[in-house]
Amino acid sequence: MTETFVIAQGGGPTAVINQTMVGAVLEARKQHPGCRVLGALHGVRGIRDGNYVDLSTLSEQELHLLAATPSAALGSTRDKPDQAYCEIVLKRLRDAGATAFIYIGGNDTAGTQQILTEAAGGDIAFVHAPKTIDNDLVENDHTPGFISAAEFVASAFASVDLDFRALPGIYVGIVMGRHAGFLTAAAAAWQLDDESGPHLLYVPELAFSPARFVADVRDVIARHGRCIVAMSEGVTAEDGRSVVENLVARERLEFDAHGNVRLSGGDLGMAVEQALRDGLPGVRARVDTFGYLPRGNLTTINATDAREAFEAGAFAVGAAARGGGSVALQEEGGITKPRLVPLANVAGKTRHLPESFLLSEGTRLSAEGKAYFERLVPRHIKIAKPFV
Amino acid sequence: MTETFVIAQGGGPTAVINQTMVGAVLEARKQHPGCRVLGALHGVRGIRDGNYVDLSTLSEQELHLLAATPSAALGSTRDKPDQAYCEIVLKRLRDAGATAFIYIGGNDTAGTQQILTEAAGGDIAFVHAPKTIDNDLVENDHTPGFISAAEFVASAFASVDLDFRALPGIYVGIVMGRHAGFLTAAAAAWQLDDESGPHLLYVPELAFSPARFVADVRDVIARHGRCIVAMSEGVTAEDGRSVVENLVARERLEFDAHGNVRLSGGDLGMAVEQALRDGLPGVRARVDTFGYLPRGNLTTINATDAREAFEAGAFAVGAAARGGGSVALQEEGGITKPRLVPLANVAGKTRHLPESFLLSEGTRLSAEGKAYFERLVPRHIKIAKPFV
Repeated sequence: MTETFVIAQGGGPTAVINQTMVGAVLEARKQHPGCRVLGALHGVRGIRDGNYVDLSTLSEQELHLLAATPSAALGSTRDKPDQAYCEIVLKRLRDAGATAFIYIGGNDTAGTQQILTEAAGGDIAFVHAPKTIDNDLVENDHTPGFISAAEFVASAFASVDLDFRALPGIYVGIVMGRHAGFLTAAAAAWQLDDESGPHLLYVPELAFSPARFVADVRDVIARHGRCIVAMSEGVTAEDGRSVVENLVARERLEFDAHGNVRLSGGDLGMAVEQALRDGLPGVRARVDTFGYLPRGNLTTINATDAREAFEAGAFAVGAAARGGGSVALQEEGGITKPRLVPLANVAGKTRHLPESFLLSEGTRLSAEGKAYFERLVPRHIKIAKPFV
Repeated sequence: MTETFVIAQGGGPTAVINQTMVGAVLEARKQHPGCRVLGALHGVRGIRDGNYVDLSTLSEQELHLLAATPSAALGSTRDKPDQAYCEIVLKRLRDAGATAFIYIGGNDTAGTQQILTEAAGGDIAFVHAPKTIDNDLVENDHTPGFISAAEFVASAFASVDLDFRALPGIYVGIVMGRHAGFLTAAAAAWQLDDESGPHLLYVPELAFSPARFVADVRDVIARHGRCIVAMSEGVTAEDGRSVVENLVARERLEFDAHGNVRLSGGDLGMAVEQALRDGLPGVRARVDTFGYLPRGNLTTINATDAREAFEAGAFAVGAAARGGGSVALQEEGGITKPRLVPLANVAGKTRHLPESFLLSEGTRLSAEGKAYFERLVPRHIKIAKPFV
């Protein structure tokens, strides 16, 4: 039987998700000469709608250029298929003669593969290949896409700290990462020394108190004359409400049809700016929303990240022959290796920043946290200590 | 007489302002063996307060590492000295035995040097060395610091366009640049092809109509399925009011003691997000504030920019011997060379994005504009065209 691999990309793009796609294509062609490799456009939606590109015939040169290009070349989707949607996808996969479906994405994508595996009953192998800048997949030491995004964030905060040495004030950078604090904590990876920024990290794992935030900033300003803050978009307050609700007067809030406050990095940024104006009047404060900038940035594609992403894709092809599952990047003796783990271990679960990565006050990296980020995102650019 | 050079850095830092400082230090030491070179901390404020570091004794290795470090290592200032402040600065310079004062900065800095020149009467040479990410100095083809910042912006928009091919929607990136549109227009420097983003540029030189903005976005969405917008922080509306005032309901605005609306990239971002929600309901829209990220970024220090900044500093030393003035980067036969021009030509003046750099509708680069940015900020990273 001719092997037919279907490959798709789901969720938010990363700088190296195409590496994983190309890793899978090249390995499939190597292990199964004459096989068909179809790329579904916009994730499961492309399978449902029969939108494919043929990846079997592209030259190695074309594929390597694709691999080096950030973001999802096949397009992505936020569709989170239920049982009924999955039944249609399964039917379409069978219509296409698929023997394996490799879906590159996060924990929702693993969930889709789990539903499909249960619905199919063994005629198609379903493999989840990991991808997320949030670094929030369990079973993984870190995920493809994270290192490149983390390098953007680390470089940005090291640079902003130098800027605020020159012209002192308060800086808050709002960083993505959903419910996991890894990308925000990566802000400290390139810290010059202990008195350098970022001075304060606010991650979603710990309840955020606006009053304590202002007090923390005041304290850092008193000690260092400037204060650089990395704050996660996902921070929530002690009462479980979003931070925006706590910081913004009710009449200025916006609600959606379900009565939920509309959230974005921008909303949070404005709320934080307001809190700083009120709490520390007269001190220059600037809030920037990083938003999508770290996640597929052309100029901070990390070589290790690219290689690991490629290897995860290649490994997924072998994983299909073993019946499917989730590919996880695991650490052993200082070396990162892909391993095959059950989809149920990863699907729908969120890995959080370990409490032990932060000092007890929760706003700075511990030695363990520092070691993790220095291993993954070493600063490869030398900088001099300024005179100020 | 022993030559004594005083060097200082003013205004917003850049990725290469230390190159200019180090270029001046090394050239002074070369041309005037045994000279003293003093670095004033935080610009003219350091001269006023007698805060100096001795740059005469640093090793070449230390200096080259400083040069490669972004932001102003001597610290900077927003002080815009008046006549009285300048009298004190002049007295302190004479106390320090200064024979030349090289001040690295933008048009305000040139203005300070002009006042000092007139007040001094010839015993000290005052030189302005150019620096600004805004690229808004007259007499200059471009300014040191601009290319690196432009490369950050160009890379970010090329990357975001790839992201929004994968997951369609509207993206607005708010970019610095005060009253000049160069940095915002640089968003288009790495455009993949004509249908790629950024699809719309909004520069401060052209009046901004919120209604037309929403119509423009709707039109691009209809044609390309996504819309990437680069908007300058400094855009103003047709009635001369700020865009925030036009887009935000009055009861949500904040005013300072003088009755002026408080502006920031964040405010504008929120206002734009609101306009898009109202004008294009149901379409995913994301607004990010680039803010300080482009201006001193460690990972986008452009080699040409670094070299030109260094040369401008070295040239400033020779300019001092010629009695002072403003160093300007001028273009001749495809080669950028520093030239000495009168301070009055540059001081307090703003260079704007030429109208001819934009097509008649004002939201896209013309061939002339494209040629300018392709010359200064060539895309040095190859990318593949995605399938979507």
